[in-house]
Amino acid sequence: MTTSPTGRPGPGDPLAAAREVASALARDAAARDAAGSAPLAEVALLRESGLLALLVPRELGGAGESWETVLSAVRVLAAADASAAMLLGYHHLHLWRLGHYGNADLAERAARGTAREGWFWGGASNPRDPGLTLVPDGDGYRVRGRKGFATGAQVADRIVVSGDAGGGKVMVVVDGRDAGVRHADDWDALGVRRSASGSVAFEDARVPAGWVVGRVPPDEESARPDQSLVVPGFQAVFVHLYTGIAQGALAAAAEYTRTRSRPWTGSGVESASLDPYVLETYGDMAAQVAAADALAERARAAFGRAVARGRDLTARERGEAALAVSAAKVVAQRAVLDVTATIFEVMGARATAAGAGFDRYWRDARTHTLHDPIAYKLREVGDHALNGRLPTPGPYS
Amino acid sequence: MTTSPTGRPGPGDPLAAAREVASALARDAAARDAAGSAPLAEVALLRESGLLALLVPRELGGAGESWETVLSAVRVLAAADASAAMLLGYHHLHLWRLGHYGNADLAERAARGTAREGWFWGGASNPRDPGLTLVPDGDGYRVRGRKGFATGAQVADRIVVSGDAGGGKVMVVVDGRDAGVRHADDWDALGVRRSASGSVAFEDARVPAGWVVGRVPPDEESARPDQSLVVPGFQAVFVHLYTGIAQGALAAAAEYTRTRSRPWTGSGVESASLDPYVLETYGDMAAQVAAADALAERARAAFGRAVARGRDLTARERGEAALAVSAAKVVAQRAVLDVTATIFEVMGARATAAGAGFDRYWRDARTHTLHDPIAYKLREVGDHALNGRLPTPGPYS
Amino acid sequence: MTTSPTGRPGPGDPLAAAREVASALARDAAARDAAGSAPLAEVALLRESGLLALLVPRELGGAGESWETVLSAVRVLAAADASAAMLLGYHHLHLWRLGHYGNADLAERAARGTAREGWFWGGASNPRDPGLTLVPDGDGYRVRGRKGFATGAQVADRIVVSGDAGGGKVMVVVDGRDAGVRHADDWDALGVRRSASGSVAFEDARVPAGWVVGRVPPDEESARPDQSLVVPGFQAVFVHLYTGIAQGALAAAAEYTRTRSRPWTGSGVESASLDPYVLETYGDMAAQVAAADALAERARAAFGRAVARGRDLTARERGEAALAVSAAKVVAQRAVLDVTATIFEVMGARATAAGAGFDRYWRDARTHTLHDPIAYKLREVGDHALNGRLPTPGPYS
Amino acid sequence: MTTSPTGRPGPGDPLAAAREVASALARDAAARDAAGSAPLAEVALLRESGLLALLVPRELGGAGESWETVLSAVRVLAAADASAAMLLGYHHLHLWRLGHYGNADLAERAARGTAREGWFWGGASNPRDPGLTLVPDGDGYRVRGRKGFATGAQVADRIVVSGDAGGGKVMVVVDGRDAGVRHADDWDALGVRRSASGSVAFEDARVPAGWVVGRVPPDEESARPDQSLVVPGFQAVFVHLYTGIAQGALAAAAEYTRTRSRPWTGSGVESASLDPYVLETYGDMAAQVAAADALAERARAAFGRAVARGRDLTARERGEAALAVSAAKVVAQRAVLDVTATIFEVMGARATAAGAGFDRYWRDARTHTLHDPIAYKLREVGDHALNGRLPTPGPYS
Repeated sequence: MTTSPTGRPGPGDPLAAAREVASALARDAAARDAAGSAPLAEVALLRESGLLALLVPRELGGAGESWETVLSAVRVLAAADASAAMLLGYHHLHLWRLGHYGNADLAERAARGTAREGWFWGGASNPRDPGLTLVPDGDGYRVRGRKGFATGAQVADRIVVSGDAGGGKVMVVVDGRDAGVRHADDWDALGVRRSASGSVAFEDARVPAGWVVGRVPPDEESARPDQSLVVPGFQAVFVHLYTGIAQGALAAAAEYTRTRSRPWTGSGVESASLDPYVLETYGDMAAQVAAADALAERARAAFGRAVARGRDLTARERGEAALAVSAAKVVAQRAVLDVTATIFEVMGARATAAGAGFDRYWRDARTHTLHDPIAYKLREVGDHALNGRLPTPGPYS
Repeated sequence: MTTSPTGRPGPGDPLAAAREVASALARDAAARDAAGSAPLAEVALLRESGLLALLVPRELGGAGESWETVLSAVRVLAAADASAAMLLGYHHLHLWRLGHYGNADLAERAARGTAREGWFWGGASNPRDPGLTLVPDGDGYRVRGRKGFATGAQVADRIVVSGDAGGGKVMVVVDGRDAGVRHADDWDALGVRRSASGSVAFEDARVPAGWVVGRVPPDEESARPDQSLVVPGFQAVFVHLYTGIAQGALAAAAEYTRTRSRPWTGSGVESASLDPYVLETYGDMAAQVAAADALAERARAAFGRAVARGRDLTARERGEAALAVSAAKVVAQRAVLDVTATIFEVMGARATAAGAGFDRYWRDARTHTLHDPIAYKLREVGDHALNGRLPTPGPYS
Repeated sequence: MTTSPTGRPGPGDPLAAAREVASALARDAAARDAAGSAPLAEVALLRESGLLALLVPRELGGAGESWETVLSAVRVLAAADASAAMLLGYHHLHLWRLGHYGNADLAERAARGTAREGWFWGGASNPRDPGLTLVPDGDGYRVRGRKGFATGAQVADRIVVSGDAGGGKVMVVVDGRDAGVRHADDWDALGVRRSASGSVAFEDARVPAGWVVGRVPPDEESARPDQSLVVPGFQAVFVHLYTGIAQGALAAAAEYTRTRSRPWTGSGVESASLDPYVLETYGDMAAQVAAADALAERARAAFGRAVARGRDLTARERGEAALAVSAAKVVAQRAVLDVTATIFEVMGARATAAGAGFDRYWRDARTHTLHDPIAYKLREVGDHALNGRLPTPGPYS
Repeated sequence: MTTSPTGRPGPGDPLAAAREVASALARDAAARDAAGSAPLAEVALLRESGLLALLVPRELGGAGESWETVLSAVRVLAAADASAAMLLGYHHLHLWRLGHYGNADLAERAARGTAREGWFWGGASNPRDPGLTLVPDGDGYRVRGRKGFATGAQVADRIVVSGDAGGGKVMVVVDGRDAGVRHADDWDALGVRRSASGSVAFEDARVPAGWVVGRVPPDEESARPDQSLVVPGFQAVFVHLYTGIAQGALAAAAEYTRTRSRPWTGSGVESASLDPYVLETYGDMAAQVAAADALAERARAAFGRAVARGRDLTARERGEAALAVSAAKVVAQRAVLDVTATIFEVMGARATAAGAGFDRYWRDARTHTLHDPIAYKLREVGDHALNGRLPTPGPYS
C-alpha cells in the first residue's frame, strides 16, 4: 500500500504505510508516553496514512486488505508505539463487527465514512462493568450509563456500544462528538498511556434510527459463531501488540548495546557486543520473539480463514481460530514480559536513566497483558490438549 | 503418498506413509527401546514403506518429494519412535549430500539403488573424533580408522565417509557389508537406544573407483555454501526430532490422564482431566509445543528454499537458513526437555511404573539434545539479534 | 557419632556415621539401582551403622539424637543413594509416631528393640488405597487387606499399620516375618528402585495384644496436633531427600566435568571447566541447591521445635512447622528436578552412556516428587502468603 | 533496640527502630518516589531513629550492634522504601571501612561524630569512572575529580573517597558541606529515585590532616582480606535490599488482592483470594521470597563471622563469606525481579493505575540489580561448585 496525496491507500506493499507511520511514531514515542493524555496526534497520523481504511473494500474507497494485513500492521506499529498500535487494532474491530448483524446499509455507510471522512472508531464494552441502557427516542435511542477501559472512545468519531433496550440487547453507533458523550480523560495507568483507555459516560447520547445496528445476542455463547468472532479478533490484536512490543524492545536494546554499552570489567572482551553472556541473553530473547512471531503468523492465518467463512462459520471453525489465537497469546505474553524486563541486563545500569525511556516497553506490556489472566488462557489451551475441547465463546475467548 | 504393493511410494498425501510407519512403530516402541541393539526391524519397515526414497526424483524411481516433506516425516515418526525418526533423517542427509560434489553419475546410481534396492544410508563423520585415512588402492581406496557416534552405520547398506587421501580430503561410499567394516554394536546410551549410534571401525574397507565421490573441502568454512548446507540440514532434522518427541509425549500423557489418572485428594473435581492445575500444565506444555512446531515449519521452509537454490546458494542465503534452524532448535530443545519431564506431573505417581515406558521420551530427548551445546546455539542466535551476524559455517552450524 | 564395634552409635559427630554409610553406599549405588529388588544390603548397613537408633534415647540404648540430626542424615545419605535415605527417614517416622498414642510401654519396647536388635521399621499407610481391617483375635487382632506404596515394609522387622477395628481405627505393629504378611516384590518404578515401595498384603497377620498401639483418630484433621505432626515429618524427609539428591548429582557432575569433559569446539578455552557457559550453568545449579539447603535447614529447625513441644503442640504451632516444610519442599523439588536434568549439559553427550549411571539422580527425583502434586503445595504456601492461613492437617499436609 | 527521647538507640529489640522507621517511610514512599530529588527527610528520619549509629560501639555512644543487625535493618527498611534502605546500608559500609587502615583515632572520631552528631556517611567510589586526584595541601589534601553513582554523597555529612596522591592511593574523608563539593542533583533513574545516586564533583575540596585515613592498596586484589571485605559487604547489603523489596511487594500485593481484587469471570469462586491460580501464584512468589530470605540469613551470618575475625581474616575466610553472599544474591535478584513483575497478575488490571504506585517495587529492583551483571555472579558461584575456587577480590566480589 502506498499513501496517496490524500492519505488514501494506493496499490503496493500493504505494510509500507504501517512502516512509515511506525517510523514517524518512533521519533517522539517516549515524549508522548511521558505526556500521556489524549492521542490526537496519533489518530491524525493514522487517518492521514490510510491505515484506518485498510479493511474497507476498494469499491467503498478503502484498501481492500485482509485481517492478516491489519494484524501485521498492528505488529509493525507496536514495535514503535504500543498505544497507537492498540488504537488501530481496536478501530478495525469496532468497524468490522458492525457487519455481522444483517444491517448492510449501516455497515456500508460506516465503511464509506471511514474511507472518505477518515472516521476513527472506538467502543465501550468492558464486560466487567454494568451494562448501558438504551432509552427509545423516536426511531432511535438515547444511551445512558458509564463504561471503563473504553479504549479509543475519547478520540473516536464514532463509538460502537450495546445496551439493554428493554426487550433485549441492541447495538448502536454513537457520534463521538454528541453532547451526551462525556470523556473523563481519566486514563492514567503505567502503560499504553496514549491509548485513551479511560472511562466514558453516556448522558442521553443520541442515536438516530440510521445508526441502530440491530438486536444482538445477550452474550457470546448465544451468538452466531461469526458474531462472536470479534472476541478472538481482540485477542489476535493483543498477540500482535505483544509480539510487536517485544520486537521493538529487542531492536532498541540491540542498538543501545552496540553503540553505548561498555564491556564488563573482567569480561576480557573489548566490546559489550562480544560478551558471551550478552550474546547468550540476546539469543534467548530473540528465540522467544521468534516463537511469538511464528505463532502470531499462525494465529492471523487462522483468524483470516475464519473471517473468510463469513456467516457460514461453524462453531468448530470459530473454536479452532480462537484456539490458535490463545496458544499464540500465551507465548507472546510470556515473551514480551520477559524481553522487556531483560533488555536492561544487556544494556547496563546507565540505560535506566529516566530520560532514556526504555521502561516504556515493559510498562506497556505489563499493563496491557492484564486485560485477562494468562492462567485462564493456559487452562483453555490445556483443555484442548487434554480433552480436545475448543474454547467456549465468552467475553475473553 | 500411498504405499504400493512393492513398498514404493505412490501418489497422494506424502505423509500418509510416515503416519502408517509411525503407527506401526508405536505398537512396540517401548519394547524395542528396552531391548536396545540394532534397529534391523525399523530399517526394514522404512525400506518397505518407501520413505527411504522420498527425496529420490520420480524419474529415478523415487517419490520426488522435497526436504519439507522429509522433515515433516521425521517429525511424524519422532512422535512414535525417536530412533527410527533419527535414522530416516540421517539417511536422507547422507544420500542427498553426495550430489554436491560434481559427481552426477555416482549421485544418480546412489539414488537409483535407494529407490530400487531400498538402500539404507549411514555415515561416520563425528567431527570430534580423529579423521579417517584413505589409502589409494588401484583406482579406488582402502579406508582406515574409527569413528564414534556413527548413527545408522551399523545397519546401513551404504556408508558415506570422508578421509585424508594424502593431498586432501576425499569423500567416498563404503559398502556396509564390506569385510573391512567392523561394527562394535556398542551403542548403549540412555536414549535413542535403537539409533545404532555406536562406533564403526574401518580396517582397509574397500572403495572401488565408482564410489569415490570426489575431493571435498577441508572444513565447512571453506566449502561452497551448498556443500556445507548439510550441517543446517542435520540441525533441521534435530528440530523435527525434538518437536515430534514432544508431540508424542504430550499425546501419550493426555491419553493417560484422561483414562487412568485419578483426581487429586482435595481437588474437589471428579476427574483428573478437570483439575485446574492439570489443565494449566497441559496448556503450558501445549503452548511450548505449538511454538516449537511453528518454528519448525519456518525452519523447514527456510531450509527448503536454500536447497532449491542449488549451486547458486549464496553464503548469506545459507546463513539465513542456518539462523532459522538455530532459532527453532533453541525453542524445540527447551520444549522437549520440559514437556518430557513434566508429563509425569499430570499423570501421577503410577505412571512411573517401569513397564509403562513414559520415561522413554525424556531419555531420547535428554540424550540427543547433547549433540551440541544449546548455549552456543543461543550465542549464535544472539549474535544475529545483536550484531546482525549470520552463523559461520562449521561442524555444528 | 562414631560407630562402636557393635555398630552402636558412640559419642561425637552425629553425622559421621551417616557420612560413612553414604560413602559405602556410593560405591555400588548404580549397580544396586540397576538390579532393583529388595534393599537387604542397605538395611543391614543402616542397622550396623547405628543410624536406625539415632532417635532412641540414650537410656534405652540409642544415640539420643534429635529429628534435626535424623533429617540431616537423610540428606547426607540421599546424595549417595536416595532409596537408602528414604528407608532411613521412613523408618524413623514409623518408630517415632508410636509414641503419640499414650502407650508408653509399647513405645519403649519398640525403641529398645530398635537399639538392641536393630529392628528396621516399615509402614503401610498409602491414604489413596482402601483401608485395612482389624479382626479381633483374643486380646489382639488379625490384619486383613492390601496396601501399595508400602515403602520399606518388604524388608521391615516391624510394620506399623492402622485399620478399621469395628468401632474405629486402631494402630498396631505387625511382625514383618509373620506368616500372614505377603510381600509382592512388585516395586518396579523408574526411580528409588531400592526403596522396597511395592505392595504388601495382610492375610490374617497376627497382632498380639502387646503390639496394639491404641485407638487413633479417623484422620489427621481430627487428630491432636502432635499426632498429625507425622505428616509434616514425612514431607520434611522429602525435603531432605530432594536436597540431598540434588547435592549428590551436582557433586558427581562436577567431578565428571573436571576430569572427563572435553572443551567445546569453538569455545576458545582449554578445558570444559573454564567454559563461560559451563561455569554459568554450575552457578545456576549451585544457587538453586543452596536455596534448597537453606530452606531445608529452616524446615528441620521448625519441625524440631514442633517435636520438642510434645503433647503441648498447638494447632497453630503445628501449622507453622508444616508451612516451613511446604515452602522448603517447593524449592527443593524444583531444584532437584532441574539440577538432575541439567547436569548432562555440563558433562556432555558421553555422560549419557547407560553404564555411567548419571540418570539415576533424575529418575529418583522424578519418581519420588510425584508423591503428592507440587501445585497443591504451592497453593498451600500461597494461601498463607495471601490469606494468612496455615496448612490444614491432612494426609499430605 | 528502643529509641530514646533523643533518638538514640536504647536496649531491647535491635530491629524495633528499623520497623518504626519502615512504618513511617511506608506512609509516603510512593509520593517521595514520584517527587524524586534529594532524600533529606529520609536521612533526618534515620538520624533521629538512631539507626545511623547501630554499629558504633556502646562506649562511643552507639548501639553496639553487629553487621547482622544492620543487614536485617536494611531488609526491614527495603520492604517499605528501597532508597532509604540503600542509604542506610551504604552509610554503614562507608563508616565501617575507615577502621581497616590502622588509623584508630580517626575511626573513633568518625564513630563518635556519628553517634553524637548524627553524621550521615556517603562515598564516591564507582570503579568504572576515572579515579580522583589528591593534591597535597599542607598536611592534608585537596580532592579533584568527578564520580558518578555516588549514592548518598549528595546528602552526606561526611564522604569517604580514595584518590591518587602521587605515590599511591590514599583514602580521605571529605566534609559534605565543603565548598569544593559540588552535587549535580542529577540522579534521575527509573528506580531507587530517592537514593541520591547521582554524580559528585570535587573541585579542590579540602581534607585536613586529621581526616586522612591512610594509604590504601591500589585494588582489592592487593588489599588485606579484611580491607577488601567491604566489597562483599556491599553485595550483602544488596542481598538484603532485594529480599526486602520482594517482601514488601508481596505484602502490598496480598493486601490489595484481599481487599480490592475482583474474582475472575468464570473462575467459579466468590473472591479473588480463593482463585486456584491466584493462590498458586502467591505460593510461587512466597517460596522464592522464602529462599531469598533463608540465603540472606546465611549470607549475613557468613559476613558477620568474617567481620568478627578482624585483621586475622584469611583470604580463604574472606572468600567463603563472599561466596555465601554471591549465592544469596543470585537467588534474591531473581526473586525480586520476578515477584515485583508478577504481583500485577494477582492484583489485576486496575492495579496498574499510576497513582497506585505498585510499579515502584519493580523499578527499584530493576534499577539496582544492574549494579553488576548477574551472569558474572553466576559464573563466580559456578566456579566454586565446579572448581572449588573462591571469589577473587575485586571491585564487585
